[in-house]
Amino acid sequence: MNKSMIAPSLLASDFAILQQEIEMVNQSDADWFHLDVMDGVFVPNISFGMPVIAAIAKHAKKPLDTHLMIVDPDRYIKTFADLGVNHLTVHYEACPHLHRTLQAIKAEGMKAGVAINPHTSVNLLEDTIQDIDIVLVMSVNPGFGGQSFIENTYQKVADLKALINRKKAKTLIEIDGGVNAENAKTLVDHGADVLVAGSFVFKSEDPRATIKELKEKIA
Amino acid sequence: MNKSMIAPSLLASDFAILQQEIEMVNQSDADWFHLDVMDGVFVPNISFGMPVIAAIAKHAKKPLDTHLMIVDPDRYIKTFADLGVNHLTVHYEACPHLHRTLQAIKAEGMKAGVAINPHTSVNLLEDTIQDIDIVLVMSVNPGFGGQSFIENTYQKVADLKALINRKKAKTLIEIDGGVNAENAKTLVDHGADVLVAGSFVFKSEDPRATIKELKEKIA
Repeated sequence: MNKSMIAPSLLASDFAILQQEIEMVNQSDADWFHLDVMDGVFVPNISFGMPVIAAIAKHAKKPLDTHLMIVDPDRYIKTFADLGVNHLTVHYEACPHLHRTLQAIKAEGMKAGVAINPHTSVNLLEDTIQDIDIVLVMSVNPGFGGQSFIENTYQKVADLKALINRKKAKTLIEIDGGVNAENAKTLVDHGADVLVAGSFVFKSEDPRATIKELKEKIA
Repeated sequence: MNKSMIAPSLLASDFAILQQEIEMVNQSDADWFHLDVMDGVFVPNISFGMPVIAAIAKHAKKPLDTHLMIVDPDRYIKTFADLGVNHLTVHYEACPHLHRTLQAIKAEGMKAGVAINPHTSVNLLEDTIQDIDIVLVMSVNPGFGGQSFIENTYQKVADLKALINRKKAKTLIEIDGGVNAENAKTLVDHGADVLVAGSFVFKSEDPRATIKELKEKIA
C-alpha cells in the first residue's frame, strides 16, 4: 500500500517570491506540487496559467499536479504536457466527452485526473474509474483558497473508495479544500491517498514544519 | 503636452522572481506597470489573474495598467479595483455594452481603457472616444509575448490621433506588441503616448538600461 501524500497548493503561496516558495516545497516532506489553474469562466476567479507554470517547472523538483478549473480543457492538453506537467486533472463538470479527454491526457504521457465538485456524486464515475489515475474530490467549491471544509466529503471519499475497490481500479483519491491537521487523518482513514493543502501550509508560521506535521498525522 | 511613456509588461518577466522584476521597474525610468490578464477563452492563453496581481500590487510603486484579455470583463471590474489596479482596459471585441462598461470602470475610480485588435478599425470608437481615457492599439494579435509588430499600426495610430483631435478628446494612445528601439520613435511621431514593452525589455541583457534607451528614443 502506498503511503499517503501531501500536495501543497502554490495558490496560497506568495507569488512575489515564487522561487523561494518552490525551494521550500522541494526541501520539505511534500510529495507533489499542486497547481490551480482558473480561467474566470469555469470558476469565478483567474489564478495563473502557462507562463507562470513555465517558471514553476524550472525550479520544482517534485511532480507537478495540475488542476484545471477551466472550460473546454481539451484545447490545452498538449500545451500543459509541453510545459512539463506530470498529472493533468480536468473537471467532470467541464467535460462532456470525459472518456476521450482522459485518453488524450494519457496520450501526452501524463497521469489523468478527474475533479468532482461538491455536488457531483462519485457514482457518476462508474464508467470511467478504471481509466482515471487520480480522482480529485473537491471539499470546497473551487475558485478561492482559504474556504472551510465540507463535512459531507468523508462519506464521499468512503463511497469513492468502495467504487474503486469494486471495479478493481488503481485510482488514487486526492482531496482539495480546507485540509488541515484536524481533518487530515480522518480523510486518510476514509480512503484518501493525497491531501492538497494551501492556506494551512503557506499561511502558517513555518510552512515546512506544517508539511511535516501533516505528513506525520497521516503516516 | 505630456511626455511619452513606457509601460513594461510583466508577462515577459521571470515569474519565479517577480519581486526582483518589480523592483527593477520601480527603480527604472518606466512610467507604468503593464499587466496582461488572459483567460484562455478570449485569447488562446491563460496568463495570470487576481492572486498574482495582489502580490504585484504589494511591491509596485507605479500605476498598474491592466489589460483584460477576457470575456465578459464587467464581472470583475470591482475585483480589479479592490486589488489596487489604476487603469483597467477592456477589449472592444469583448464588450457588447462598451459604454456601460466604461462608466462602471470609472465609477470604481479607475481610468478606463479600450483595447482594439489588429482587425478593429479606430472608427468604431467614434461614439465613445470622449469617454475613453486610454485606447490600447494592439500591434500584434493578443495572446502571447514575443510576436512581430504589425506595420499597419502606424496608419492606425495616425487615424486614431485624428479622431481624438476631431472629437477634442483627451484620450491617450497606448501601443502593445512588438515594440522595440527601432519602431518606438516612429510610433510616437504618429501620435502614440504610451508604449508597452515586454520581451524587448525583459529578455534584454540589462532591462533597466533598455527601458532608459526606449525613453530616450521617444523623448
